Amino acid sequence: MMVEIETSAIDYEIRAMFRTVIDKTEGHHPSFRKALHIAANSALGGKLLRPRLFLDLYEVLADPDDKFRYDGVESPVKEIAAAIEVLHFAFLLHDDVIDGDFIRRGRPNFISRLAQQSKISTDDHHDAERKEWARSSAILIGDLLLAEVHQIFARLDLPHAKRLQLLDLLDHAITDSIIGEFMDVSLSKGLISPQLADVQQMSRLKTATYTFELPLCSAAIMAGYDPQKSAEFATLGGLLGLLFQFQDDFLSAFGNQAEHGKDELSDVREGKETLIIAYARKTAAWPLIQPYFGNANLNKENIREIKELLVTCGAQSFLEDTIAHTARLCRDQILRITAFSPAEVPVLLNALVDSLEGRRS
Amino acid sequence: MMVEIETSAIDYEIRAMFRTVIDKTEGHHPSFRKALHIAANSALGGKLLRPRLFLDLYEVLADPDDKFRYDGVESPVKEIAAAIEVLHFAFLLHDDVIDGDFIRRGRPNFISRLAQQSKISTDDHHDAERKEWARSSAILIGDLLLAEVHQIFARLDLPHAKRLQLLDLLDHAITDSIIGEFMDVSLSKGLISPQLADVQQMSRLKTATYTFELPLCSAAIMAGYDPQKSAEFATLGGLLGLLFQFQDDFLSAFGNQAEHGKDELSDVREGKETLIIAYARKTAAWPLIQPYFGNANLNKENIREIKELLVTCGAQSFLEDTIAHTARLCRDQILRITAFSPAEVPVLLNALVDSLEGRRS
Repeated sequence: MMVEIETSAIDYEIRAMFRTVIDKTEGHHPSFRKALHIAANSALGGKLLRPRLFLDLYEVLADPDDKFRYDGVESPVKEIAAAIEVLHFAFLLHDDVIDGDFIRRGRPNFISRLAQQSKISTDDHHDAERKEWARSSAILIGDLLLAEVHQIFARLDLPHAKRLQLLDLLDHAITDSIIGEFMDVSLSKGLISPQLADVQQMSRLKTATYTFELPLCSAAIMAGYDPQKSAEFATLGGLLGLLFQFQDDFLSAFGNQAEHGKDELSDVREGKETLIIAYARKTAAWPLIQPYFGNANLNKENIREIKELLVTCGAQSFLEDTIAHTARLCRDQILRITAFSPAEVPVLLNALVDSLEGRRS
Repeated sequence: MMVEIETSAIDYEIRAMFRTVIDKTEGHHPSFRKALHIAANSALGGKLLRPRLFLDLYEVLADPDDKFRYDGVESPVKEIAAAIEVLHFAFLLHDDVIDGDFIRRGRPNFISRLAQQSKISTDDHHDAERKEWARSSAILIGDLLLAEVHQIFARLDLPHAKRLQLLDLLDHAITDSIIGEFMDVSLSKGLISPQLADVQQMSRLKTATYTFELPLCSAAIMAGYDPQKSAEFATLGGLLGLLFQFQDDFLSAFGNQAEHGKDELSDVREGKETLIIAYARKTAAWPLIQPYFGNANLNKENIREIKELLVTCGAQSFLEDTIAHTARLCRDQILRITAFSPAEVPVLLNALVDSLEGRRS
């Protein structure tokens, strides 16, 4: 039977991880401790996709007699779940610095909140300076959290070989994400020319490995599956990551703004090299779209025109087909996993594919 | 007998560490691999103070029959030495992003070199954009190196308890450095008021722990010293860090520019809250110095005037006295260590105090 992991239980673990970090700064300057508290609050309130996926899969994969319990007592499973979410948050901190963003999940991000809450008085008008300082703080707190994630993996009370497997996985996830983010920045600054293959690889690297491969394979390793079987989960992770990213691109262009919480056509405004743009570039519609690409100030009329161009040039249906095709590849891979897993595993994983394919936010 | 560790041997290990990182990016976009090569070249050419201190001390502390060999074969000692230097380099990358610096050790830093070498053509005039991209790259490569340092400590082929001791030490060094850098930024942006105690604590946190405590204690732990004895090295590390920082402040104000490679009065130009400034603030000379504080464009006459004010207000002799006093505290602590160490240890450590006290660059 699939066990629904409570959000509050994961939140509790994330809080505990921040508590550990804050305790280490005992006696140090209160402004740093305050910044950490703001970071903890910013880290909470997400969808917890990654730790949830890890815990749900672990729950159905692990032998009931051999399972790490995560109610009440300390367990490596709980710690890994929190570390996976905090790794995601640390990446967001550095991404927001790099992209100059102040909004995340539809609300002020850490940088924005820290800058606001550090106002010395109501007639303090050094907004730009405080934002710059808050960005520096986001670099430093991201570093501290990245270090803490490693400390958790490095200290797991497991046989050394198993710890090394998990460390390999963490290393792989971090390396991929960093290369992906580097390519993303390089593409948007024009330092890599926007080839479709590069755009797709960037998307996969930046998100898929740490969002899907890391939780899925960590669950398989913790449940005692051998490297060959864990590798099947890695393959699925890569496909799920693509599905997630394509759906993201689709929502940015054609989704309901109220549901996904970003500006309409935010990717176009930011000049972001998505799959939809890579396709549109090769069509006759591109010269008409290009003037708007990277233009932050689009009016309603511009938006209507761009959307229509993306439909008529075939980019919309191309992306829909790609999403459907990728979802099929995911289901095929789940079949392969079914061969060696308990019956609840394909149920859980197919439900995940359904939710990714149909998500609206 | 004290063994002089060759610079080339340490350089070799640092290169090997970068080689490992670069190998992990095999098949990925060449521009990222190129950036890593530039990072490797930027990381080399330093004074190697930290790994040298670690290796020199390990060499005289360790029981000859029980020593890890680091000629030829893989040894945790070699790996730790490289990781200590690469940690330093990762901090420099993020510090340079935070401070907006393009010069390091008197030559173009990683950011500056990457921006320059990524010029697509000679008539590429997007200098500001390329610098911004290079700063983003410095954040990402700093993250990757920080992760690699943790991987090295986490994977050391040592008894788990010993590995945990080293992980504690790494954690402590990173936490202190990050809090110190946070305080430094907060002081220079005026978000923490410049109290002498905070300025001193900032200096200690930012540099002392990872520069002295980490190498000294790592050597003690690797040589098999118990936590109580290792703690005596930690105390010495804190004092050496203060000595180093005070000497740095002194050189910035009164040193020979040609020898230390920074602009004359660079700390004053940058509005940096050093011990010398904290002292001067409490004197009658401050209203005369303040107009120049944080002013990047000082002429020869300004510089002459500020230096004279720092002498007449007593800041110079206060700093000289503080340096001499701190050096004495270091020598007292070395006496304590002498009680339980081989005879070469105080020789090595006292020579270090002499060189820090008398350094000109």
